[in-house]
Amino acid sequence: MHISSTLNPDECRTLLESERYGHLGCTADGDVYVLPVTYAYKNNAIYAYTHEGKKVDMMRKNPNVCLQVEKVDMPKGWESVICWGVYEELTDPAQLKEGQFLLAERFAEQWKERGAITTFSPLVEDLSEVIEGRPAVVYRINIDRMTGKRRTFG
Amino acid sequence: MHISSTLNPDECRTLLESERYGHLGCTADGDVYVLPVTYAYKNNAIYAYTHEGKKVDMMRKNPNVCLQVEKVDMPKGWESVICWGVYEELTDPAQLKEGQFLLAERFAEQWKERGAITTFSPLVEDLSEVIEGRPAVVYRINIDRMTGKRRTFG
Repeated sequence: MHISSTLNPDECRTLLESERYGHLGCTADGDVYVLPVTYAYKNNAIYAYTHEGKKVDMMRKNPNVCLQVEKVDMPKGWESVICWGVYEELTDPAQLKEGQFLLAERFAEQWKERGAITTFSPLVEDLSEVIEGRPAVVYRINIDRMTGKRRTFG
Repeated sequence: MHISSTLNPDECRTLLESERYGHLGCTADGDVYVLPVTYAYKNNAIYAYTHEGKKVDMMRKNPNVCLQVEKVDMPKGWESVICWGVYEELTDPAQLKEGQFLLAERFAEQWKERGAITTFSPLVEDLSEVIEGRPAVVYRINIDRMTGKRRTFG
């Protein structure tokens, strides 16, 4: 037996704030791409970073993306939020620094939780590292709309 | 420090076989949708099920979808596979039964792993249950291509 219910906007925001790992979907020319991302949520925006490549090309072409985040607590149940918004690269130095700072915090929490020694976690400087000739891209997704669902088993 | 490498096709298949939970992306009319799915992998196809609604409408409109699956073993590293393929609903009774059987097996394993009593796990019959007037849809994704990546930290 299970009970399904909808999360209200406050509950969606609470989930986005409490988590830091989700799956991003982007699409261009009828093609679709899904990838895991570590993110930070602040002021109705999702901050994340990556390196130039196929997914950045796609998001530059079609900035309408979505992020799905779930919190699974089985056997009790799960909550899931999906938000849609517009991809924006952070190039303004102050905004870029803020994005990098928020992300470095999330990475540090994540590495700590996963049992790594904390010096493994990316620092703000590491978030601008060029990998295999591909520059780092810090971006945010300005959320337009979101929806959430909870399922409780019992 | 980290080392990145590409997974070969056999390693991609091994990951898809050993996991049973991933994230599916679909797109129609420039919109994109990401959702978590429990799946079964067999003979170069992904089996999953859902209920009629927005995502089924999208996949009927544009059957080109992708599934991303990751196996995280931090602090050591992670592996991730992304596969693209064509959505096909299973309506032929023998194929439908096979799909339901494969999925019921995966759900049973999942519930067991998550500590639920096994009678909670969906049985083949539960996979045809109509929820809120929405019929169940069992489908498979016939894989066209896939790519995989491994990152090792040390």
